[in-house]
Amino acid sequence: MNKVLDVIKSRRSIRRYLPDPLGQEELDAILEAGAYAPSAHNDQPWHFTVIRNRELIDRISRVSKERMAAQDTGWIREMGRKEDFHLFYHAPAVVVVSMRRDALSPLVDCSAAIENMLLAAESLDVGSCWIGLAGYWFSLRDEVARLGLPEGYEPCYAVALGRKGHRPSRALPRKAPPPSFID
Amino acid sequence: MNKVLDVIKSRRSIRRYLPDPLGQEELDAILEAGAYAPSAHNDQPWHFTVIRNRELIDRISRVSKERMAAQDTGWIREMGRKEDFHLFYHAPAVVVVSMRRDALSPLVDCSAAIENMLLAAESLDVGSCWIGLAGYWFSLRDEVARLGLPEGYEPCYAVALGRKGHRPSRALPRKAPPPSFID
Repeated sequence: MNKVLDVIKSRRSIRRYLPDPLGQEELDAILEAGAYAPSAHNDQPWHFTVIRNRELIDRISRVSKERMAAQDTGWIREMGRKEDFHLFYHAPAVVVVSMRRDALSPLVDCSAAIENMLLAAESLDVGSCWIGLAGYWFSLRDEVARLGLPEGYEPCYAVALGRKGHRPSRALPRKAPPPSFID
Repeated sequence: MNKVLDVIKSRRSIRRYLPDPLGQEELDAILEAGAYAPSAHNDQPWHFTVIRNRELIDRISRVSKERMAAQDTGWIREMGRKEDFHLFYHAPAVVVVSMRRDALSPLVDCSAAIENMLLAAESLDVGSCWIGLAGYWFSLRDEVARLGLPEGYEPCYAVALGRKGHRPSRALPRKAPPPSFID
């Protein structure tokens, strides 16, 4: 079978990680895959910060959860209040993806870069999870200063990476309406 | 070499297509790849319309160009006025990607789905190009009615697909700032 189609279909969000660190080579391959995403006007408006510092990873989780616990939306509030919930599922590495504010479509381009990283990870049997809820931490200017981002960039998403601590079955059948054809 | 990393790095936007139609099987594989993207809250908020009708493809190009030709931004205006420019580079198939408006982050999810489709296409040696400028046509309500979209969806991007009419060299070295590490 076509390996690319297979990896696309077998990738799942991983929500349990082994504590083992990733090798530098596989991490570099994943980051490089992100950088080869297409982008509007070839802006390549992304920057990646790899956090392997356990204290900072745990801090982002803790601070995000405090803010989530105060939200109106029920499922977000409940996750924030759940004691054993960790925003990155204790992954040993977290990639913060930041976008260049003045680019043409930075959020969309960063999304393509993230998908490349998730697929690259899966191809190396590295587990990954796209974390949108880190946005609760990203909106705190004093906290984000810890990342030392280049001028003009701001964080939009995070990706948890690590050895898989579980092996979910293949994805369920898709639920979106089927494609239509105009011939 | 890892086939997935290779395809991620060798994919380029294709801007010249052979007139040959794509096989239904490869088209179905590409659409299926799109549907296996991750999405916030597992919304899967996308819908794909495959246009193989030459008249409609040309119409979207023509109408978009008329609107582009009236824009203030220089490079968009010039593309709109360029007689031999075709918005989809005369590709034999165009996938319109539509997003479900009430989802959590539909544009970001659709971007991941598009990146999956581009990589699936490349893995089959099918050429592709992500077309943002189709947005000039998408904003015309009467025109979009021709797509017969399901209720609650609106188009956000298009993807040109077809046999490659040129073979660009590998992508140039990346220009974004290199990753940083916090250990």
